Amino acid sequence: MKYPNNLKKIVIKNTNHSNRGMSLEYDLNITNDYYRIKDIAIIYKKPTPIKIVKVDFDKIKSATITQAFFECPSTTDYNGIYKGKYIDFEAKEVKDKTSFSLSNIHNHQIDHLFKVLDHGGISFIIVRFCKINKTFVLQSECLKSFINLDKSKSISLEYFEEFGILIDEAYTPRLNYIKVIDNLYFGGKL
Amino acid sequence: MKYPNNLKKIVIKNTNHSNRGMSLEYDLNITNDYYRIKDIAIIYKKPTPIKIVKVDFDKIKSATITQAFFECPSTTDYNGIYKGKYIDFEAKEVKDKTSFSLSNIHNHQIDHLFKVLDHGGISFIIVRFCKINKTFVLQSECLKSFINLDKSKSISLEYFEEFGILIDEAYTPRLNYIKVIDNLYFGGKL
Repeated sequence: MKYPNNLKKIVIKNTNHSNRGMSLEYDLNITNDYYRIKDIAIIYKKPTPIKIVKVDFDKIKSATITQAFFECPSTTDYNGIYKGKYIDFEAKEVKDKTSFSLSNIHNHQIDHLFKVLDHGGISFIIVRFCKINKTFVLQSECLKSFINLDKSKSISLEYFEEFGILIDEAYTPRLNYIKVIDNLYFGGKL
Repeated sequence: MKYPNNLKKIVIKNTNHSNRGMSLEYDLNITNDYYRIKDIAIIYKKPTPIKIVKVDFDKIKSATITQAFFECPSTTDYNGIYKGKYIDFEAKEVKDKTSFSLSNIHNHQIDHLFKVLDHGGISFIIVRFCKINKTFVLQSECLKSFINLDKSKSISLEYFEEFGILIDEAYTPRLNYIKVIDNLYFGGKL
């Protein structure tokens, strides 16, 4: 997403935090590219949902959208297939050193993750603690346990350390989360 | 997608056919809503990919996109999960009475459907012949056979009649394509 230069400062000051997670998003995108090129998995980030208000059709072949707004996504950001199984996850970066606030994920996204589980798919969240540069997979099963048992609104880093799985970071693939999924659900032969 | 009224005529004259398929899209969206409400399957249409050029952050809480363009989708329009299996398909309406031109689907979308198949998922196309009001599921296996054996650029209605499966249309669910998938892959107990 390219913002005009003179708006950069405003972006940084912007309070809706929409710019958070671009780096994790980048890492996941190049990792997913790698998986597709190597024919390991087919996983894509869904396009950002946008509500279009005005379109200018002056140019016959390329319509220009002149007014539109960012919409709240109805599902998670990433889905696809690995070894025949449906894969679905949400990814978030957090600046907090010690905990991940559940307010980072919409309730309907959490419901979606649990529904995927009920339908026999594999679903999870990927959370990066930026300050300590650790990125975890937390299975929806563990997220469900946490929500059912713990009434707090934040998941501590300790919970991720205990029940999540740290993702290896390397040059290629950048963020090998499929290795984690393979270990958890397919006997780890990747 | 709402276009301003005064642009409607231009939309109709627009040569990129981006408006085609809105009715099939509507039918599929309410069918997918039905499947989700009844907890039968979780299938969504992906948002239209849009390349954002300019964003106005004047209002702190709601950024307005002031210049953007429609992008070519990298995958198919619909995916999700049914009975644990990954489901992926593209849907097209055609005005031609007797054949479906393959130019309606991008080559990389066809490649994507075949890759889903290779990875153990279920993929297909849904094609509606508007003039005769018949909507078919054509499995990617049959699409592959056609492309490998037949060098023509169009799939005839007869091919759909012989190798595709007609989808029941009703009040609810509007377009019961999961029944077709259930018959083909799960023994038809839906």
